[in-house]
Amino acid sequence: MPSRYLSFRCSVPWLILLLQALLLLRSFSGFPGVSDTYSSSDSYPEFQDVNHMVVFGFGFFLMVLRRYGFSSTGFNFLLVVLGVQCSVLGEDLLVFLRGGPNQVGLERTADCSLWSLARAFVSVTAVVISTGAVLGRANPVQLIVMTLVELVFFYVSRYVNETFLKVPGHLTGVHVFLFGAYFGLALASRFPEPPAGLDKSRSSPKSELFSVLGTVFVWVFWPSFNSILPSSKMRAVINTYLALAVSAVAAFMLSALTSKDGKFRMAQIRSAVLAGGVTISYAAERIHHPWIAMILGLLGSVITILGSHCAQRCFNPALKLQDTSGVHFTFGLPAVLGAVAAVVLIVVQDGIGTRWNELSRLGYGALVYIGAFCQTMSTALITGLITGLILNIKLLKAVHVSKYFDDQFYWEFPHLSVGF
Amino acid sequence: MPSRYLSFRCSVPWLILLLQALLLLRSFSGFPGVSDTYSSSDSYPEFQDVNHMVVFGFGFFLMVLRRYGFSSTGFNFLLVVLGVQCSVLGEDLLVFLRGGPNQVGLERTADCSLWSLARAFVSVTAVVISTGAVLGRANPVQLIVMTLVELVFFYVSRYVNETFLKVPGHLTGVHVFLFGAYFGLALASRFPEPPAGLDKSRSSPKSELFSVLGTVFVWVFWPSFNSILPSSKMRAVINTYLALAVSAVAAFMLSALTSKDGKFRMAQIRSAVLAGGVTISYAAERIHHPWIAMILGLLGSVITILGSHCAQRCFNPALKLQDTSGVHFTFGLPAVLGAVAAVVLIVVQDGIGTRWNELSRLGYGALVYIGAFCQTMSTALITGLITGLILNIKLLKAVHVSKYFDDQFYWEFPHLSVGF
Amino acid sequence: MPSRYLSFRCSVPWLILLLQALLLLRSFSGFPGVSDTYSSSDSYPEFQDVNHMVVFGFGFFLMVLRRYGFSSTGFNFLLVVLGVQCSVLGEDLLVFLRGGPNQVGLERTADCSLWSLARAFVSVTAVVISTGAVLGRANPVQLIVMTLVELVFFYVSRYVNETFLKVPGHLTGVHVFLFGAYFGLALASRFPEPPAGLDKSRSSPKSELFSVLGTVFVWVFWPSFNSILPSSKMRAVINTYLALAVSAVAAFMLSALTSKDGKFRMAQIRSAVLAGGVTISYAAERIHHPWIAMILGLLGSVITILGSHCAQRCFNPALKLQDTSGVHFTFGLPAVLGAVAAVVLIVVQDGIGTRWNELSRLGYGALVYIGAFCQTMSTALITGLITGLILNIKLLKAVHVSKYFDDQFYWEFPHLSVGF
Repeated sequence: MPSRYLSFRCSVPWLILLLQALLLLRSFSGFPGVSDTYSSSDSYPEFQDVNHMVVFGFGFFLMVLRRYGFSSTGFNFLLVVLGVQCSVLGEDLLVFLRGGPNQVGLERTADCSLWSLARAFVSVTAVVISTGAVLGRANPVQLIVMTLVELVFFYVSRYVNETFLKVPGHLTGVHVFLFGAYFGLALASRFPEPPAGLDKSRSSPKSELFSVLGTVFVWVFWPSFNSILPSSKMRAVINTYLALAVSAVAAFMLSALTSKDGKFRMAQIRSAVLAGGVTISYAAERIHHPWIAMILGLLGSVITILGSHCAQRCFNPALKLQDTSGVHFTFGLPAVLGAVAAVVLIVVQDGIGTRWNELSRLGYGALVYIGAFCQTMSTALITGLITGLILNIKLLKAVHVSKYFDDQFYWEFPHLSVGF
Repeated sequence: MPSRYLSFRCSVPWLILLLQALLLLRSFSGFPGVSDTYSSSDSYPEFQDVNHMVVFGFGFFLMVLRRYGFSSTGFNFLLVVLGVQCSVLGEDLLVFLRGGPNQVGLERTADCSLWSLARAFVSVTAVVISTGAVLGRANPVQLIVMTLVELVFFYVSRYVNETFLKVPGHLTGVHVFLFGAYFGLALASRFPEPPAGLDKSRSSPKSELFSVLGTVFVWVFWPSFNSILPSSKMRAVINTYLALAVSAVAAFMLSALTSKDGKFRMAQIRSAVLAGGVTISYAAERIHHPWIAMILGLLGSVITILGSHCAQRCFNPALKLQDTSGVHFTFGLPAVLGAVAAVVLIVVQDGIGTRWNELSRLGYGALVYIGAFCQTMSTALITGLITGLILNIKLLKAVHVSKYFDDQFYWEFPHLSVGF
Repeated sequence: MPSRYLSFRCSVPWLILLLQALLLLRSFSGFPGVSDTYSSSDSYPEFQDVNHMVVFGFGFFLMVLRRYGFSSTGFNFLLVVLGVQCSVLGEDLLVFLRGGPNQVGLERTADCSLWSLARAFVSVTAVVISTGAVLGRANPVQLIVMTLVELVFFYVSRYVNETFLKVPGHLTGVHVFLFGAYFGLALASRFPEPPAGLDKSRSSPKSELFSVLGTVFVWVFWPSFNSILPSSKMRAVINTYLALAVSAVAAFMLSALTSKDGKFRMAQIRSAVLAGGVTISYAAERIHHPWIAMILGLLGSVITILGSHCAQRCFNPALKLQDTSGVHFTFGLPAVLGAVAAVVLIVVQDGIGTRWNELSRLGYGALVYIGAFCQTMSTALITGLITGLILNIKLLKAVHVSKYFDDQFYWEFPHLSVGF
């Protein structure tokens, strides 16, 4: 189909060019300068860790399909660098709309600083997660449009949380896993299912190994990710580390327990080792006892492994949903668990602090967090569905199912031997 | 043998669960809180480096066998996350038994801090090194039991050194390479030898390449590893870097010199580039002249290359020992050299400082260090032998030699094409 | 040809030994001690980033050839560790010749410090880049001689710039990309061309994937590289990050636009994502507006993609030049662009500052920078040509063209299946 290729050529570069031109224009008019001050003494190494985790770690984490290695890393890279530029504007707009200094207590100018870049990286993770749900089925045009639409809706959702529900700014950013996973799921449900016996939709030992490489990177850098937003950085780091360690141990245990003959299953372990980091993200800075962090890591791993069994056997076939890299149980379910756990923790901590005297205030506080959670989740699902419908119109040239999961559709292979 | 698989299924997850439950209970009763203070201004990036080095670097460094990639990284990951949790308790117990503030001069509370996590990571390296000696021959149950037993004995050995020999606390931690290597060797001697012509016990170019990837990571992060315990951090970093650089240069030189036709041998180079880091670890913070660090790096590389020839031709066949990833010459011999060099350095430095007037005090000081070295080494060898005997009882289900070095025995492969 | 192998065995190790002995001697007589002071509070993480980028990132970035994986990473490693040791001496000599404290305002003793190591790493990048141009065609003896000669000439060029043209010290280090690329090109023109249809000179999907892995590392750590020399570190970081992000976006756009059927070409993208980092390196610390950094990144990417088309179709065939990993358009052309842009920026900034009153001073300042640029470029080209002639004399045993691009010529393969 040469016409398809030609039209593909006409759309992708011009769409990127248009976007980049708009971002340049906005940056020309919007940012008076580049900040040369450290927001705090230790933020640069953490920024680098998060940068590394999102660009490299998630890029290789997604490299599960046997013939989709170039696209997994390449498109993840493209979406992150585009998304970060959009996100810097979003963060800026949010601070402007909030109309005052932020909660962390740093003075903010309109300069482009490391701090805004770091926050932009956190937000762009939503896009990376959503990409995982439609991995191999969405073409670059669809992915770029998705990036834009998703970031806009994510910032709208955060704005609603901050303005109407009065949730502190650095807590609204934590909803990134929840939003990304359910947006991606709703989106994926609108993509046509691939044929059942497609060999390309499976992994190979080599692609799994690259994916393990990426997973270990994400795992190692997760404490930096969870500590970049809160103010109690060290506590967030240690709690996240403990939760990750326990969830990694539990991942091996549960994988051997639930498989047919006591063997480990790498795909499950890859998902479950990260579950602790997602679960703890809501409460990383307010947990004062290591055992709470460890329990949360354990529960995160349990829900991921159980979820992966339920999702693949009941949920996904019932909804005719294909979730390529399992974002539902890797990021979605642990995020729900983490949000619930965070509400319980806040209520209990406040309750103990006030000796359970101000029950109405406690209930109101809990309601606000539950409201923010419900609002984020429903926004993600509804906007994901709408975006899925938009992405599958003719104009955006949906890929035919026979071309799914194939690098050769998007990349030139000047090599003799093809296939990963 | 389906019965074997079933019984394997019954043992691994429950053993992990029991352990994790005990660790959770201990953490519930033991740690009052999570510390939110930096122990020093620059420890977080170094902690991340060591975390990365142990989890990722060693995991991929061990990926030398052609069909054992999943197990090399996976089991290393499992043992590290289990071991670190145990080690945090060990470190805590050691501080408690020592009964006072530690030598580095930091105030210590019972809180779980980054400092205890970092020290736990250093100790767990002993387990990682021992794993290398029985790589491909020990099953997960044996590895988990080994982790526990080895850490207990390592902490006992350190306690003896600190209490009876009055060696400063941060110097006893340095024995980690010595202990790990000789514990692993003694352990490996109790495992049945694999059949001679086994193809699976060799590496492939692809597995070597992943192993090179891991080696480079370990090499790059070694300065952080050596500087995490001492107080003169910058000096330790620079000395370690110089030793590593010289040992890398010497590795290439000696590899070309000792091979049949002047070609380089990747397996040797992989071992020898790391030798400098091991050799310098004992004295990294007390060397004041760069050339001493460089000479130590050179000697470390020489002893590794010579050791690899001797070990493979004389030593290992004589003792019927199979040391899968060469921990004897990679970590054992350079550690012995480093310990000897450290004693000489201390005596000479003190001798020059006191103009050789207090020879009896000098001799006593040297004796203490030599005593600590001998005690560590003999404890490692004896407890390693005992552990090897324990691990090979029927209960722990030793793997049959025909199943050695094979991922398929432990991992599900849902892929069509199998083999790395 | 067994005689060839034997003679190869006689040359490489002794050459390395001689060099290392000289370096040890120099270090024995030259450095009184190891510094234990931080030059600034945040330099260690950045030093580690640059170390990681040069040793690991570039090593895997160069792994493009299908049968040259071991040599790409291995020789890069060897040259870096040798080169850094030489560079530390070079930096020291430069400070000595300059005869005073450096421009950054730090007090300098003769001690070996992290600061000198970090600067040495920056200089050694020139060698890494030149290696890319003769990748697969130069043997280790030639590469080692090249490393020495190139570093000597690079320091001579910097000395001329600092002494006669009065360019500040940290600005002469930035010429490293320009020098490395054009030295490498001139060198490569003296090597005989490989036969046209050689299969080994192509990449395979697996080698491309490892190369992508290295490229992402270089990309992630580039902000640390550009911020290690200047004093306005944070501004350099943010500007570099913005330039890299835009050049990555533009790389995808231009690759799709210039290919036959709108597909992406990984080799082009790999080069172009890094172009922003090279282009911004000259001016990273003096750009005060984000949009300037973004425009520079965009232009860098454009010149790389256009350059890759021109070079492969017109320039290289006309000059009978083979530039294996495309250093001309990856590092050379963006560096030229960056140098020109820096001069324009300096003139405009100074012009606005002085309201265009001191035109003669402005012109003089611009002339100095242009002079330094021309001097560096011509030195690189002339000395590269001379070095290329020296390297191809019989004594250094040039590789026969049929042995080009082959690991098996340099490495022992004890494996059954050979080939990457």
